[in-house]
Amino acid sequence: MQPSQALDLSGERFVVVYHLTGDAAEADAKARDICLEQTVEFPDELVPDGDIRAHILGRIESLVPLTGARFAARISYAIETAGFELPQLLNLVFGNISLKPGIRLERLELSPRLLQSFSGPRFGRAGLRERLGVPQRPLLCTALKPMGLSPIALAELAYQFALGGIDIVKDDHGLADQPFAPYRERVQRCADAVARANQQTGRACIYMPNVSAPADALFEHARFAKAAGSGGLLIAPGLVGLDTMRRLADDEQIALPLMAHPAFQGSFVASADSGISHYALFGQIARLAGADASIYPNYGGRFSFSHAECNSIVEGTATPMAQIKPIFPTPGGGMSLERVVEMRAGYGDDVIFLIGGGLHKHGPDLVENCRHFLSLVE
Amino acid sequence: MQPSQALDLSGERFVVVYHLTGDAAEADAKARDICLEQTVEFPDELVPDGDIRAHILGRIESLVPLTGARFAARISYAIETAGFELPQLLNLVFGNISLKPGIRLERLELSPRLLQSFSGPRFGRAGLRERLGVPQRPLLCTALKPMGLSPIALAELAYQFALGGIDIVKDDHGLADQPFAPYRERVQRCADAVARANQQTGRACIYMPNVSAPADALFEHARFAKAAGSGGLLIAPGLVGLDTMRRLADDEQIALPLMAHPAFQGSFVASADSGISHYALFGQIARLAGADASIYPNYGGRFSFSHAECNSIVEGTATPMAQIKPIFPTPGGGMSLERVVEMRAGYGDDVIFLIGGGLHKHGPDLVENCRHFLSLVE
Repeated sequence: MQPSQALDLSGERFVVVYHLTGDAAEADAKARDICLEQTVEFPDELVPDGDIRAHILGRIESLVPLTGARFAARISYAIETAGFELPQLLNLVFGNISLKPGIRLERLELSPRLLQSFSGPRFGRAGLRERLGVPQRPLLCTALKPMGLSPIALAELAYQFALGGIDIVKDDHGLADQPFAPYRERVQRCADAVARANQQTGRACIYMPNVSAPADALFEHARFAKAAGSGGLLIAPGLVGLDTMRRLADDEQIALPLMAHPAFQGSFVASADSGISHYALFGQIARLAGADASIYPNYGGRFSFSHAECNSIVEGTATPMAQIKPIFPTPGGGMSLERVVEMRAGYGDDVIFLIGGGLHKHGPDLVENCRHFLSLVE
Repeated sequence: MQPSQALDLSGERFVVVYHLTGDAAEADAKARDICLEQTVEFPDELVPDGDIRAHILGRIESLVPLTGARFAARISYAIETAGFELPQLLNLVFGNISLKPGIRLERLELSPRLLQSFSGPRFGRAGLRERLGVPQRPLLCTALKPMGLSPIALAELAYQFALGGIDIVKDDHGLADQPFAPYRERVQRCADAVARANQQTGRACIYMPNVSAPADALFEHARFAKAAGSGGLLIAPGLVGLDTMRRLADDEQIALPLMAHPAFQGSFVASADSGISHYALFGQIARLAGADASIYPNYGGRFSFSHAECNSIVEGTATPMAQIKPIFPTPGGGMSLERVVEMRAGYGDDVIFLIGGGLHKHGPDLVENCRHFLSLVE
């Protein structure tokens, strides 16, 4: 091994908090392993002395016991090792150790200079409220479904939703570019339908088509949506990549609010002992990757997130991260109109309520159902 | 809800095998839920009769008990619902249900017409062997590390590896575009070093730089690598998106062999009761997404995959999938030269052995260590 050269590093480090499973000796071994595995990926005895050992290697800042044979490790990394970009940041904080048991990424504590590399959400809570003309109350969202409807039928639904006072009408995330509802025809019809309703209501409802498309088509789809009059975009970073969402958010020509859908991301939060915390994944990381709203399955619906996990997501959407704006937590998944009052008591006003199928159940008239939904928060 | 129109569907369906946790009633409820959740995402009682209920909805083809309170469900979907593209296929087979407990995607049984939508790996096993001029034995791979070395130091390592007979010299996946080893300088120097060694040895070693870069830079990095003389590319689909890898594989101008790295994908395989099977993720899905080689942590190394899980990956890399070529299983992660004989007995010849840090441990002379590695398989 060549002697290591002197590295021109800033000395700035940032911290990642991991929860480690095991007794004190095991947790210590895991923490030491993370420091190697995530940086030099080299046997300890072969790591060159000098700057590589002193700076490039991860460093255990603290290791403290939690309840139940778990430890919290604060591990710091030189900001340069993250490359000032999202894929390498994700790799550094959780790449290889995602493959090792008993390690859970709990929280990012990114440093100022590293955060300056990211623009985060273009709109955030305040920007999206301004677009919608809704300064204070919870925002209302629903989805166009079921899959299999024609563009005309979907557009009729969009019209009724917008007429009834929904703020954001999004594609169901399973609407892609299938032969029964081709992307361009669907998007144009639905955007037109929402615009027509807005003319009647004086509201500023926005339609968010799903652009979780193949890599060669995604940006073209997004530009088409913008030209068609869509006021935002739905995107599933688990399907297309977190950094693809980040790039979409950063695109100066497209410049539309983004709503992140959690499809294909569930495995990250499936275990209390490994993966990534709800707080970090659906809060901090969604923000870093440019989402203005982060959908997740609400507690008590047809998914399995707990009340505490949902609260932690809310926290992650707004925890201070330098210039990175707070975003909207967007609980959905088997929600019903009957739960809106309870949800508002818990979530307060800075939230988007996403009710899909449940909005069809309240009564036979969809427009009336939407008006009722709105009356519950106004 | 509007009456559903007659849908112009081919009638062709494909099957996904899920393992479901629970007793017979729970497994049945889970299977029925998957059929709704992954397609119409609508309450059962609201699903329109006609083509949507008859064809768009997922269908339970069989549900059979396994040992230990688990069931195997074969669920079929109309091929049109997958949109003939990777992001929507991934969404359809595992999007929302990744967020539900006790559901594991075990195996894809894609139908001929759906498979025709994917090119898969450009080279596959035979194509990569031809490029390397190695018709039969296991291929040898190592990684440039540790992070923190300069491009000059990394290139010197690459030279020694290639001189010693390594077939594939790849970047460590933590090498991005950091200030201490900028992408372009590193790639040019390492590609030159390998070319120089090849001139001396008469071999056809290839250098695979890591292109797991931001979405705006990734293809530019890949084109630069090709122009610099790199013979392949390393990419981590967990960091940049599976469909980004697919697009890279399909690019006619770049047209280089791809090696997939599992960074950030570990959570998918962390639980026996949820997530995606090793077979499907590192075998079938890696192939669909265009990888020519699929890296995974070998059993008995510093990660936690079992021998059986590794064998299932090997199976997934070669199981018949119409025109989609078989690819190389690439076990790595804490491997040593001492294990090569045992590994070859288990893996046979159609495998890439990835030994990183372990190659530095055998003796002080790296070139000699590589020659020894080669002698073990020749």
